[in-house]
Amino acid sequence: MPSIAYVNGRFSSIEDAVVSVEDRGFQLGDGIYEVLRTYHGQLHAVEPHMRRLFRSLDAIELKHAFTAAGLEQIIREAVQRAGFDDSLVYLQITRGATKRTKEFPIDVPPTLVITVRKLELPPAAVREKGVAIQAADDIRWQRCDIKTVCLLPNVLASQRARAAGCFEALFVEKDGTVNECASANIFIVASGVVATPPLSARILGGITRDEVVALAHKNGVPMQERRVTLDELLAADEVFMTGTTVEVLPVVKVNDRPIAAGKPGPVTQRLHKLFCELAD
Amino acid sequence: MPSIAYVNGRFSSIEDAVVSVEDRGFQLGDGIYEVLRTYHGQLHAVEPHMRRLFRSLDAIELKHAFTAAGLEQIIREAVQRAGFDDSLVYLQITRGATKRTKEFPIDVPPTLVITVRKLELPPAAVREKGVAIQAADDIRWQRCDIKTVCLLPNVLASQRARAAGCFEALFVEKDGTVNECASANIFIVASGVVATPPLSARILGGITRDEVVALAHKNGVPMQERRVTLDELLAADEVFMTGTTVEVLPVVKVNDRPIAAGKPGPVTQRLHKLFCELAD
Repeated sequence: MPSIAYVNGRFSSIEDAVVSVEDRGFQLGDGIYEVLRTYHGQLHAVEPHMRRLFRSLDAIELKHAFTAAGLEQIIREAVQRAGFDDSLVYLQITRGATKRTKEFPIDVPPTLVITVRKLELPPAAVREKGVAIQAADDIRWQRCDIKTVCLLPNVLASQRARAAGCFEALFVEKDGTVNECASANIFIVASGVVATPPLSARILGGITRDEVVALAHKNGVPMQERRVTLDELLAADEVFMTGTTVEVLPVVKVNDRPIAAGKPGPVTQRLHKLFCELAD
Repeated sequence: MPSIAYVNGRFSSIEDAVVSVEDRGFQLGDGIYEVLRTYHGQLHAVEPHMRRLFRSLDAIELKHAFTAAGLEQIIREAVQRAGFDDSLVYLQITRGATKRTKEFPIDVPPTLVITVRKLELPPAAVREKGVAIQAADDIRWQRCDIKTVCLLPNVLASQRARAAGCFEALFVEKDGTVNECASANIFIVASGVVATPPLSARILGGITRDEVVALAHKNGVPMQERRVTLDELLAADEVFMTGTTVEVLPVVKVNDRPIAAGKPGPVTQRLHKLFCELAD
């Protein structure tokens, strides 16, 4: 089977996997999600992904009876059924399907959807050359720390970045504060010191972000979690992004301006190597 | 048949109406919607609803081949099949179903979903007594003028209002600027002058709002579209909300404080009467 879906207890192909038109995920964006991947069939960082999943459920006050162990078991079965070496696992939980009301429904079971597809990584040439990104006004809501499916602002920013020939959009506040990319966290390197925006309601606490911060500390790479401005980023020696599928990806151009020499830098490459040793 | 759904060309019961788990409405909130109602089987204000729908489609750059006439025909057929005297029509268009990517997919047809249910109005006692509302910090994104399905902030605010015994949540900026309710627009009356927040990216341009503004002008009721503050609202002679199902609904309590004598006021009642003469 080329791809696998699981919806509320039932496995099928993704093509056959459906939800009600009155699912609150579809009508109200009333749900949360996680994206995990496998390396050689093994789920990576499943514990932090589960912690973040339950944090998201709590943050939107979604009543449920899920346990990390129970969800992990379903994910593992889905991954096994799909049988890919490297899988992309998408998991979404919504506040269920019922007649549409803005307030929470009573006694409606949540919807659990999992899909497993073959992981498609950025081409090797992209990783070797690095990518271009484009700044976008951060017009998102004030709780970007919750991994909700209300992603239209990210969709619109991503599309504009792609239309401009860029790999990703970078959300920046009016005052120049850099937050994160539409699907990844952002880091800069200046004079050998790595910096990334601190955890706040304006960014999603990325699992790869946390792993890279920890790897830097463990390996003696100076690392700061602090406010980063767009001016600082444009003047940095290196810029990179982190995420589940991009891992540690060099950014060599921002708003059509090359970062330093416009090539992936040594600190980025070292952190990516350390990350691969950890994950792969 | 008790209720009707239409999904991409096919009519069914709502219970049998489904969309793909990879619909971009479900996974990304990448869609827009409208809610219409009938009076005695006749669709109300269908032209302004269609104008707003196409404005929303344009605003999120959703490529489509829909026409107002074509959509109206489907809506009318759905309303006729359902056969209710007063129907609630829900229409949603998303950027289609395909393998999840943040950027727009290429050559994927949009998803069109319509449901028709029997309209449930606020009980007569609620209209006679008026309702309580509760202020909530407006933490939504910066394009609230687009009627998107990314409604989680509205869901959370509505739930908190309901949990506090209130009918609705009122979104207020940090500086005290009143925007709108989670599902309705807001008006105040002070010294015989009606005021409502002006159209901006912070509020949805309500169809009933526009009708009430026009009715006031036509009938010599002084009406201003201008900034309204929470302090002003709390000190007003009357407060009311407008929306497709609530029509013109008196608000008699805000944050547990009665508005004036805590009873529906004469200007609100007059505007509701004028609205009913127009619509009913």
